[in-house]
Amino acid sequence: MTHARASAFVPGHVTVFFSPLFHEDADRAGSTGAGITLADGVSVTVEIAPEVRIELNGERVEVEPVERTLGELSVTASVSAETPLPVGAGFGVSGAMALGTALAGNQVSAETRSENELVAIAHRAEVQAGTGLGDVVAQARGGLPIRLSPGAPGHGQLDGIPAPVSLEYLSFGELDTPEVLASDTESINTAGEEALQRLRERPTVATLFDAGYRFARESGLLTPRVEEVVAEVRATGGTATMAMLGETVIARGTGLTEAGYDPSACLSHPTGARICSGADSDRIG
Amino acid sequence: MTHARASAFVPGHVTVFFSPLFHEDADRAGSTGAGITLADGVSVTVEIAPEVRIELNGERVEVEPVERTLGELSVTASVSAETPLPVGAGFGVSGAMALGTALAGNQVSAETRSENELVAIAHRAEVQAGTGLGDVVAQARGGLPIRLSPGAPGHGQLDGIPAPVSLEYLSFGELDTPEVLASDTESINTAGEEALQRLRERPTVATLFDAGYRFARESGLLTPRVEEVVAEVRATGGTATMAMLGETVIARGTGLTEAGYDPSACLSHPTGARICSGADSDRIG
Repeated sequence: MTHARASAFVPGHVTVFFSPLFHEDADRAGSTGAGITLADGVSVTVEIAPEVRIELNGERVEVEPVERTLGELSVTASVSAETPLPVGAGFGVSGAMALGTALAGNQVSAETRSENELVAIAHRAEVQAGTGLGDVVAQARGGLPIRLSPGAPGHGQLDGIPAPVSLEYLSFGELDTPEVLASDTESINTAGEEALQRLRERPTVATLFDAGYRFARESGLLTPRVEEVVAEVRATGGTATMAMLGETVIARGTGLTEAGYDPSACLSHPTGARICSGADSDRIG
Repeated sequence: MTHARASAFVPGHVTVFFSPLFHEDADRAGSTGAGITLADGVSVTVEIAPEVRIELNGERVEVEPVERTLGELSVTASVSAETPLPVGAGFGVSGAMALGTALAGNQVSAETRSENELVAIAHRAEVQAGTGLGDVVAQARGGLPIRLSPGAPGHGQLDGIPAPVSLEYLSFGELDTPEVLASDTESINTAGEEALQRLRERPTVATLFDAGYRFARESGLLTPRVEEVVAEVRATGGTATMAMLGETVIARGTGLTEAGYDPSACLSHPTGARICSGADSDRIG
């Protein structure tokens, strides 16, 4: 059933609020919180090769979660990823690359794993690399994921807001995820837990943005540039908040355009990551 | 945030093997087992109306799980469903209608519920109507769902086989699901548990069909007509089994065509049910 080459698509993901949970067992580590998966995502192709080689939009890169994922799969391959999303700006690109590598990598592997096992491999790879805590499980689920409890499948519990949403986004660049996740997280935890409680009481897109922006302020993660843009969107009657963790503003509908910016636009993704290789590709498996 | 009209798409679902679990709490009732969600599915439109009215492919029908779902949502509406799938033949049409009604009905309701709550409403409606035990949670998930433990979200646990599959199917008509589910289920349970254990050890499409056909024989559910067709598919080197619960043969790839039949063809659906109403449709919600 093995192939030399396989591919997968993983939606982007912006976290709107979160509470990190660190745990020495990477399956149990993760975060609670909520976010939005994006129709813009990452297409990942994995091809058996003499040595590990990773490319993102045609340029050679080092991505520790991808290397770790290949290692857990015992696959030596070239991984080629394409995305229209900004990198390092809170869109879950590293999580998407890890998850896409797991799903496509399983297709080129002699081993057979279940989907939960593959999601867990990518989740652990992100946690161990320090690049993310909740993107992978959200991207495997799709929609507007609510992370009720942290961790890989079998540990974490997910729900969702049952409403599609159109977004605009504007990114001023990177925030250092490992640095933020390694900092004092008490104010983040408190603000994240309050936001989650509010969203569970009323699971709508309006609550998500409202609770998210309160989280951004109370957690101390809000940057002056993001604050200024969100204020301008609000002044024109729009709704916006900050994508965690990037110096990135996300707005509902055309909120950024109406405030005079020239943003990218994107729909939420209705569903989760998927394998794109031909149907019945493991015919003899 | 309410609308007069909303719609959802729910993939079809064939169960390949199962073990029923009856429980007085409908959230905990359900089944373990495995199956395949289908790119052919059911499109459901819910529109606020003076009285409940349900149509399937343009004809007025009575579908108890849909009525129960509307009742739990406190929505009075007309529900219009369209599907290319055979009805009552093991393709999960009643579950799809219930889940589609829940997802679209929430959009026309003044209440706000999470996705898990909506899946649970549809699951309970199927269980209480006696029309199904595991289709709804599988259809909410998509792919090739493995039902590790029974019940609605928060109770049941799911996994999946990470491989797309192309199928052909041939249906000779209905089996009475409530009658079969009300019959002595000990042989079904035993065969279903063995099949699940085999699939968990090796979660591939090949194991799914192989374990499924052994289940069909050992559970006593295999009918002579299905047995004859499966034998012919196997004689030409193909793979086939029975869809539970219908007098329906499903074959991998072009197995039925190669055995001389004129079947319908379908791909597995990569992901789960989705709301089709316009993005940001609850802008003011």
